[in-house]
Amino acid sequence: MTDARPAARRRVVIVGGGFGGLACARALAGADVDVTLVDKRNHHLFQPLLYQVSTAALSPADIAAPIRKVLASARNVTVLLAEASGVDTEARTLLLDDGDSLPYDQLVLATGSAYNYFAHPEWKKHAPAPKTIADARTIRARLLGTFEAAERTDDPVARGALLTFVVVGGGPTGVEMAGTIAELARYTLKGNFRRFDPAEAKVILVEAGPRLLGAFPEDLSAYTADALRKLGVEVRLDCPVQRIDESGVQLGDTRLPAATVIWGAGIRAADGADWIGGTSDRGGRIPVADTLAVVGQDGIYAIGDVALCLQDGRPLPGLAQVAQQQGRHLGKELRKDAPVRPFLFRNRGDTAVIGRHAAVFSFGKYRMKGRLAWLLWAIIHVFLLIGFERRTVVMVQWIWRYLTFERGARLID
Amino acid sequence: MTDARPAARRRVVIVGGGFGGLACARALAGADVDVTLVDKRNHHLFQPLLYQVSTAALSPADIAAPIRKVLASARNVTVLLAEASGVDTEARTLLLDDGDSLPYDQLVLATGSAYNYFAHPEWKKHAPAPKTIADARTIRARLLGTFEAAERTDDPVARGALLTFVVVGGGPTGVEMAGTIAELARYTLKGNFRRFDPAEAKVILVEAGPRLLGAFPEDLSAYTADALRKLGVEVRLDCPVQRIDESGVQLGDTRLPAATVIWGAGIRAADGADWIGGTSDRGGRIPVADTLAVVGQDGIYAIGDVALCLQDGRPLPGLAQVAQQQGRHLGKELRKDAPVRPFLFRNRGDTAVIGRHAAVFSFGKYRMKGRLAWLLWAIIHVFLLIGFERRTVVMVQWIWRYLTFERGARLID
Repeated sequence: MTDARPAARRRVVIVGGGFGGLACARALAGADVDVTLVDKRNHHLFQPLLYQVSTAALSPADIAAPIRKVLASARNVTVLLAEASGVDTEARTLLLDDGDSLPYDQLVLATGSAYNYFAHPEWKKHAPAPKTIADARTIRARLLGTFEAAERTDDPVARGALLTFVVVGGGPTGVEMAGTIAELARYTLKGNFRRFDPAEAKVILVEAGPRLLGAFPEDLSAYTADALRKLGVEVRLDCPVQRIDESGVQLGDTRLPAATVIWGAGIRAADGADWIGGTSDRGGRIPVADTLAVVGQDGIYAIGDVALCLQDGRPLPGLAQVAQQQGRHLGKELRKDAPVRPFLFRNRGDTAVIGRHAAVFSFGKYRMKGRLAWLLWAIIHVFLLIGFERRTVVMVQWIWRYLTFERGARLID
Repeated sequence: MTDARPAARRRVVIVGGGFGGLACARALAGADVDVTLVDKRNHHLFQPLLYQVSTAALSPADIAAPIRKVLASARNVTVLLAEASGVDTEARTLLLDDGDSLPYDQLVLATGSAYNYFAHPEWKKHAPAPKTIADARTIRARLLGTFEAAERTDDPVARGALLTFVVVGGGPTGVEMAGTIAELARYTLKGNFRRFDPAEAKVILVEAGPRLLGAFPEDLSAYTADALRKLGVEVRLDCPVQRIDESGVQLGDTRLPAATVIWGAGIRAADGADWIGGTSDRGGRIPVADTLAVVGQDGIYAIGDVALCLQDGRPLPGLAQVAQQQGRHLGKELRKDAPVRPFLFRNRGDTAVIGRHAAVFSFGKYRMKGRLAWLLWAIIHVFLLIGFERRTVVMVQWIWRYLTFERGARLID
C-alpha cells in the first residue's frame, strides 16, 4: 500500500490500539500531523473487565469499542486493521505482514503484553489466560461446559474433577477469576442442575509467593485471602505449580485432578523489542528514556506494557493508567515538532476486586476494603469504559446482576 | 449414562430447545412426568433477531438464554447438553452421539431446520446464512472485515468488489439483511474511514421469483421493494443465481464481483426424519397427524420446522409462532396419560422488518406498513424475548441506536 497523500506533513505511526496507543492517537487529534494507528484487531478492549466476559457476566461487545469509531472525529487519524511485523529503522518504515510498509517520521510502539508461561509453553492449551476476547470466550465455554458435562456423568470421581477449578496466580487477575467462579457456582447456577449441586464446586487459587496481591499493602492481602475463603475459595500460598496437563495440576507432592485450570500468573511484553534490535530485559520490554524515546533509536517511542520506563529508579508497573498517561503525554508532545519533555507518572490508586461487595483500594498511605471499596471499584470501572452506550448497558447489567446473581452471557460457543 | 431414578414415572424426552421444544418443556413443568430436554447447544436462540447480531447491532448473548436457566424452576425437567444421533424405536430409546441412550415413553422431535443450498453445498462456504450464533459471528466478521480491507487497498476495482454485498433470497431474512447492511454502510460507518465513503457500498438483493416476501400480500411486497430502494438497496427480481464462488456471483449473463455474499434462500428440516425411517417430503420434514403424532410411529411426536403438519390441506409454515403453539399444545396434552387431542394453529399475524421505520405486518385481511408497522414489530419482538434482563438491555440498545445510528457490537473475531 502506497500512501498517495503528499508527504509534506509529519507522519506519526502508532502500533497498538490499547490504552496507550489510543490515548496517544486521541491526544494527536486535530494536530498538523498525519497519524496512522495500526492494530491487528478492530477493537479497543477494556481489559480490566475481561474477567467478567470469561465468567459470563458481560458480553464481549460490552467491553470492546471499534477503534475507528472512537477516532471517527479525528480526521487526521487513519485506522488500519493490519498486523505489524517489523521496523526498517534505516528507511523509517513500519513493515506489515502482507508485505506493505508505512513510512513514519515518528513511530510509537504500544503493542502491550501477553501472558507468559515461563519455561512451559505446553501449559498454555490446558490453562488458558484471559487476555483477548477469544481467550475469554474459551474460558467461558470451558467453565460452563464442565458444569454441563458434570450433569451428564454418573461417575462421582469424574464429576469431582469436572467441578474442580484451579486458578494459578494470586495477582489481581487470579483473585478476580477465583472470586467470580465461586460466585458463579454458588449463586448464579443454583438450582440449574438436577444431578448435583453446583455449590459442590471446588475453586482453588494457587500462588507461588507468600501472599496474594503482592503489589498491595500486606493487610489488604490478608483481607483478600479471608474474603475469598468466605466465598468458598481454597487459597494455597507458597505453592508453586510443578506441572499442568489435560487432567489437572501437580502442586508439590499433591496431584489435583481438575478439568479447568486458568492461568493468571505471568506477563511478558508483546512483539516490539525484536523489531528494533532486541532487549536485554527479562520481560521483553523496551527500555525508554524519561521522554519515552527508545534508548539508542531515533524517532521511536514505546509506551505501556511494552515499555520499560524507570521512575525513581524503579520500573513503572504494567497498568492501564500508566499506559494511558504515557500515551496522552506523548501524543500532546508530538503535536508540535519539538523535543519531547519528560514524562512523570502520577498514581491514581490501585484497586482489585474479589467478588460481590469485596474489593481493595490503595492510594499512597490511604487504603480501603470491603463494600465501600467495591462500590468505588464499580464506579471507577463503569466511568472508565469508553462510549456512552456501553456504560449504560454495562450498568443495567450490573445492577440487574447485583439484585439477582444472574449472568447475562452464559453462552457456550 | 444410565438413569438411576425409579422408572415408575412416565418419561418424556424432547430433542431441541428452540421455540417448539422449549414451549413443550415449559408446558410440562410440574406435571407427574420425568422430562429430559436434549440440545446440542446450551442456549435457546431467539432467531428472529439473529440478523441483528449478523449486522453488529446486538451481541449474541442478547438474544440467547441458557436453556437450563429458563427451565430452572421446572424441577421435573432435566436439561442435557448432548447431540442426539438416532432413535431405537423398538427399545424406545433416544441415542446420543457419545454412545449413551435415553429411554422414553414419549419422544418429541423438535430439531428445527437449517439453511439449504439445494444442489450446491459448495456455495455454503462462500455464502454463509444466518442460522446459528456462529453463523451470525461469521457474517458480522465478513461484513466489517471487507470495510477494513477496503481501507487498506488503493486499487479501485478491488475496493469495488469489497464494497459489494449480495444477499440471495427475497424472504424475510434476505429483506432484513439487505436493509440493515445498507443502513450499516450509510449511517453507522459514516465518517469512520479516510480513503473511501462507506455509503459507496452496493447492496444487491437477488430473488429468483417475481416478488419479495412471497408469503405476504402483493401490495406489501411492492412497498418492501420500494422501501429497500430508498435505503439504497438494488432489488433484482426474477433473477436466479447460477453460481457463487470466492470472488462473487453469476446472475444469468452478468458476473457480479462481490467479496460478501449472504444466503437466505432456502430452508430444510434438520435431522430427525432419518432417525425414524426417513420421509418422502422434499424438505425433509416428518409428516404428522393433527395430534402432532408421527404417522406410522408409536409414542413419537414432531413439532416446529421439522414437522410437516397439514391444516386445511396446506402445510403450516416454518414460523416461530407455529412451533411455539405446537409445543405448548403438546406439552399440555402430555401432562396426562391420555390420547392427545388435535392441534389447531391460530395465526397471530406475520411481520417482517426492512429497516429503520420500515416494516410490514399482515393479519388476515388486515395489513400495515411503514413507521407504525415498524413500531409494532419492535414492540412484539422485544416482548417476545425471553427473560427480563435481556429485554431491558436490548431495549436500551435499540433506543440508543435509534437516536444515534450507532451499533454496539462491531466486533471482528
